[in-house]
Amino acid sequence: MSWNSFGRLFRFTSWGESHGPAIGVVVDGCPPGLALDEAHVQGFLDQRRPGTGKNVSPRQEPDRVRILSGLYEGRTTGTPIAMMIENVDQRSKDYAGLPPRPGHADAAYDAKYGFRDPRGGGRASARETAMRVAAGAIARLIIPEVTVTASVAELGGEADPERWESLLDEARGNQDSLGAVIECVAEGASPGWGAPIYAKLDADLAAAVMGINAVKGVEIGEGFAAGRASGRASLPLMQASGIDGGIATGHPIRLRAAFKPTSSIGIGGRHDPCVGIRGAPVVEAMVALVLADHKLLHRGQCG
Amino acid sequence: MSWNSFGRLFRFTSWGESHGPAIGVVVDGCPPGLALDEAHVQGFLDQRRPGTGKNVSPRQEPDRVRILSGLYEGRTTGTPIAMMIENVDQRSKDYAGLPPRPGHADAAYDAKYGFRDPRGGGRASARETAMRVAAGAIARLIIPEVTVTASVAELGGEADPERWESLLDEARGNQDSLGAVIECVAEGASPGWGAPIYAKLDADLAAAVMGINAVKGVEIGEGFAAGRASGRASLPLMQASGIDGGIATGHPIRLRAAFKPTSSIGIGGRHDPCVGIRGAPVVEAMVALVLADHKLLHRGQCG
Amino acid sequence: MSWNSFGRLFRFTSWGESHGPAIGVVVDGCPPGLALDEAHVQGFLDQRRPGTGKNVSPRQEPDRVRILSGLYEGRTTGTPIAMMIENVDQRSKDYAGLPPRPGHADAAYDAKYGFRDPRGGGRASARETAMRVAAGAIARLIIPEVTVTASVAELGGEADPERWESLLDEARGNQDSLGAVIECVAEGASPGWGAPIYAKLDADLAAAVMGINAVKGVEIGEGFAAGRASGRASLPLMQASGIDGGIATGHPIRLRAAFKPTSSIGIGGRHDPCVGIRGAPVVEAMVALVLADHKLLHRGQCG
Amino acid sequence: MSWNSFGRLFRFTSWGESHGPAIGVVVDGCPPGLALDEAHVQGFLDQRRPGTGKNVSPRQEPDRVRILSGLYEGRTTGTPIAMMIENVDQRSKDYAGLPPRPGHADAAYDAKYGFRDPRGGGRASARETAMRVAAGAIARLIIPEVTVTASVAELGGEADPERWESLLDEARGNQDSLGAVIECVAEGASPGWGAPIYAKLDADLAAAVMGINAVKGVEIGEGFAAGRASGRASLPLMQASGIDGGIATGHPIRLRAAFKPTSSIGIGGRHDPCVGIRGAPVVEAMVALVLADHKLLHRGQCG
Repeated sequence: MSWNSFGRLFRFTSWGESHGPAIGVVVDGCPPGLALDEAHVQGFLDQRRPGTGKNVSPRQEPDRVRILSGLYEGRTTGTPIAMMIENVDQRSKDYAGLPPRPGHADAAYDAKYGFRDPRGGGRASARETAMRVAAGAIARLIIPEVTVTASVAELGGEADPERWESLLDEARGNQDSLGAVIECVAEGASPGWGAPIYAKLDADLAAAVMGINAVKGVEIGEGFAAGRASGRASLPLMQASGIDGGIATGHPIRLRAAFKPTSSIGIGGRHDPCVGIRGAPVVEAMVALVLADHKLLHRGQCG
Repeated sequence: MSWNSFGRLFRFTSWGESHGPAIGVVVDGCPPGLALDEAHVQGFLDQRRPGTGKNVSPRQEPDRVRILSGLYEGRTTGTPIAMMIENVDQRSKDYAGLPPRPGHADAAYDAKYGFRDPRGGGRASARETAMRVAAGAIARLIIPEVTVTASVAELGGEADPERWESLLDEARGNQDSLGAVIECVAEGASPGWGAPIYAKLDADLAAAVMGINAVKGVEIGEGFAAGRASGRASLPLMQASGIDGGIATGHPIRLRAAFKPTSSIGIGGRHDPCVGIRGAPVVEAMVALVLADHKLLHRGQCG
Repeated sequence: MSWNSFGRLFRFTSWGESHGPAIGVVVDGCPPGLALDEAHVQGFLDQRRPGTGKNVSPRQEPDRVRILSGLYEGRTTGTPIAMMIENVDQRSKDYAGLPPRPGHADAAYDAKYGFRDPRGGGRASARETAMRVAAGAIARLIIPEVTVTASVAELGGEADPERWESLLDEARGNQDSLGAVIECVAEGASPGWGAPIYAKLDADLAAAVMGINAVKGVEIGEGFAAGRASGRASLPLMQASGIDGGIATGHPIRLRAAFKPTSSIGIGGRHDPCVGIRGAPVVEAMVALVLADHKLLHRGQCG
Repeated sequence: MSWNSFGRLFRFTSWGESHGPAIGVVVDGCPPGLALDEAHVQGFLDQRRPGTGKNVSPRQEPDRVRILSGLYEGRTTGTPIAMMIENVDQRSKDYAGLPPRPGHADAAYDAKYGFRDPRGGGRASARETAMRVAAGAIARLIIPEVTVTASVAELGGEADPERWESLLDEARGNQDSLGAVIECVAEGASPGWGAPIYAKLDADLAAAVMGINAVKGVEIGEGFAAGRASGRASLPLMQASGIDGGIATGHPIRLRAAFKPTSSIGIGGRHDPCVGIRGAPVVEAMVALVLADHKLLHRGQCG
């Protein structure tokens, strides 16, 4: 069990640096017989693609995914599904000779590995998250009965969507950046998915979401509000939280993730004023991955 | 990889129901040669023991731990360390014939397993957390250079400790209960512990803490405040967060956990008015377990 | 993933030294609702119990197993099943002050861990295998459609059972010991169990059986005979081997394990003249464990 | 933990079908700072390459490996190393419309997955083993102090190398094929590598080697000869076996693998008269992978 895999029975392993020749992912444990083509995966990738609006980084990557294995005549075969995106826009000279950047993982990588690929964010780049989205697109095939939807709930502390555009303009003008809270709702998970104790559905979701770049907090259901309430006040909330004792209840599962502001303000490179906006599809993907895995696990033990 | 184990290289597996004959834990992967006796573990267990104050459940368990393997002449041998606590006070009649209790995991267990041990909380009981504390006591031997301290930061939304006693009295009088926010600080983790991508130190900590009964939210470092801030405002905070890109920086690691209020108000059984108070030693244990595991993992790959 | 666990979805973790207070095992991932009591497990343990014949070690252990968790009213609950046997006959003085014994793992433990519990074989004792038999008894509940039977095929190189008794008498008289080949046949495994590439049914069986003390060789199906044959000659054999490409075909699965002779001849302690005889129930247990695990895995991915 | 990964701390995941666009492998857990280039990996691949002699399949694949990640300026960075080989010679029409072939895994795949990629052997093709050789080339960087050498010990039951050429000519003339026994010796493994009980070095080696296509038997050290011997006769052998109680002793580790004859005699496709000949580099690779993994594991727990 190493560092670049995620999942238990349905498991994926990502690889690649933002400024290397390509990035990729291998999805293992996918059931056979599911209809799949590159267009399905591409659709989810396009949602998170940079360069599609003024509020996201202007880096222009077509992010064209290729499926290299695990498919025969448009259906999964049960063998590993390898996907790859070539990096066609690698302006690594933007980064050459830069010292470790505060708020990036540069110094941490130096501490861990002794030396480091200085081009872009290396593995820590947000680009790696494209492969989570690709894997999440496969996960969704396993749980067609579930809808997973993530969206911005707060931007720079502001919950009113009508204010967001002007906040972003202001931040851009000041070369500043903004944090965001992303909310994700999953409807349709069957009662019984999940597990008590150390593979709790909520614990796995927390790991999945906290593992996304820039996320600093995760709430399931009532979250920190419950930590500040009394039992009488929160009882109605609890009945609707979607997970009890680590196991899905059949009600919608709700979680929120706090994305810190982009840390690269005033330094080189090309970055988003609010990475949280592009975080929503990644949160969706990770939630779909956890649910697909637990569906298979539940079927394995209790099916 | 099943449901009742936690950890990668340093790994523990807990077992037992609150109203069965005993509960226990097997700790695997502990390095050899560490000084250990039952008193060391007992000391940590006594901190979380019920019946030691008016604010925690009056159930009287001596919680006397026995170490059954993995020791020779007071030192660990590198083989699995089995620990067990007999359940001497099992008033399961308190629960006989009770329907699934709202806010407990009863209905979720029914959905998952088809039938369920109705006595006490079964595996979902807070009693299982004693074994996490016992395992955490072993973990601390591996990281003697690290101090891990958790304490109540907020109680019922109140951050001023002087108000807590009266809030608890009030809740008890009303047969109500209170949520809590527990803060944990770990000092002394070496730069380099952790891993990028899917075994991030912060993601592992989030899973560890979210897996504790009643926890509904986890923040690392600046947490949700960062999700509500601008980059300029949060930059100073970020430099002190202790984890960057999933890897320890050498600065203190800070996290907060939101414990929801006890859900058993007005129902049978014996329970705490604020489970969060007893949650602090469990948070400490889980943080120690994750750090010990990552110390060994880092030594394995980069040592 | 540590050293004392075995299995993927259905997983057990054993603990305990032969001369400590007890040995035990925690079985995790067992489906709920299966009828189970201590007598079922005890029946399998009694088959391998020492002291039941002149050809096995005279150590007298009642080997009385207790089930401590995971059961409610005679059925499994889906939570971990902890089992324990107290060591009532611990003559560790037999071993006190002995130097590392050739053919035992003593020197290897010294090399690995730096120091070692010198009493009996510690973890390396054949006594640990009792817990594999106990776990195997649970595994059999998951695969009631499969019969797993192991027996002696050769003793000291002799395949004719009528010669075995006199060979054993002769060995005992000479303070010598004998190797054995154990054959195991599993009938009833469904076509499809297993997996290609790195979780092949035959590879998992090989690991399971090679991990038994004293086993030095494993053959699946036609085994080494196939390595010495031509394709035309072996084609009929291959069609009946029970596993193809790592996946069960539905035909009986056959394997053989080579047990080396007891290594303790002429040294202190109490030992069997032929450990292979007692190895048969352990081989059966390990085969049952692998098949149960793969049944659940197959149901998880392809169910 | 899924089906297409191998290893614990040092872990690789392979993907790809013999007649798809490419095959590949992701190696995770490699320590940072090791000198690596494509030529190093290519050298090992060339040893197993088809089309390099009259005794191996005439399929002409350049098998040109590309390293896509995990390298910076000729050194490993500690992040995943992805390698890929494009399949330039995919004559899948050779196989179109063929029914399941006896001795291949075709029927087994049908049973498991319900449908199957009929082109070539799919995942079960010997071509997948190229990725094990590529991963093994990385493993060797971790254990430069160890030499791992595998070679043919018997061919068609004949141990005298001078007879092999004529046996092969004869088999080819008869459209027959031959089994082989491959012997592998690893020198330089440090005492202490390995683990008792369920991650024994010999059990991991058995799984690694039994998982190679066409292998039907594995022996460690004295192997089946020990199962047919007496203790007095085998004691000298045992002291030189290289593994005791699952742990390396520091002596050379010896194992043998039985490869069954090619099963495709008289059917379509292109195949080797003796797959065992090409199996030797794969056995070497798998042994190197297990030893590298256990070196890291030992350093993690006992370093």
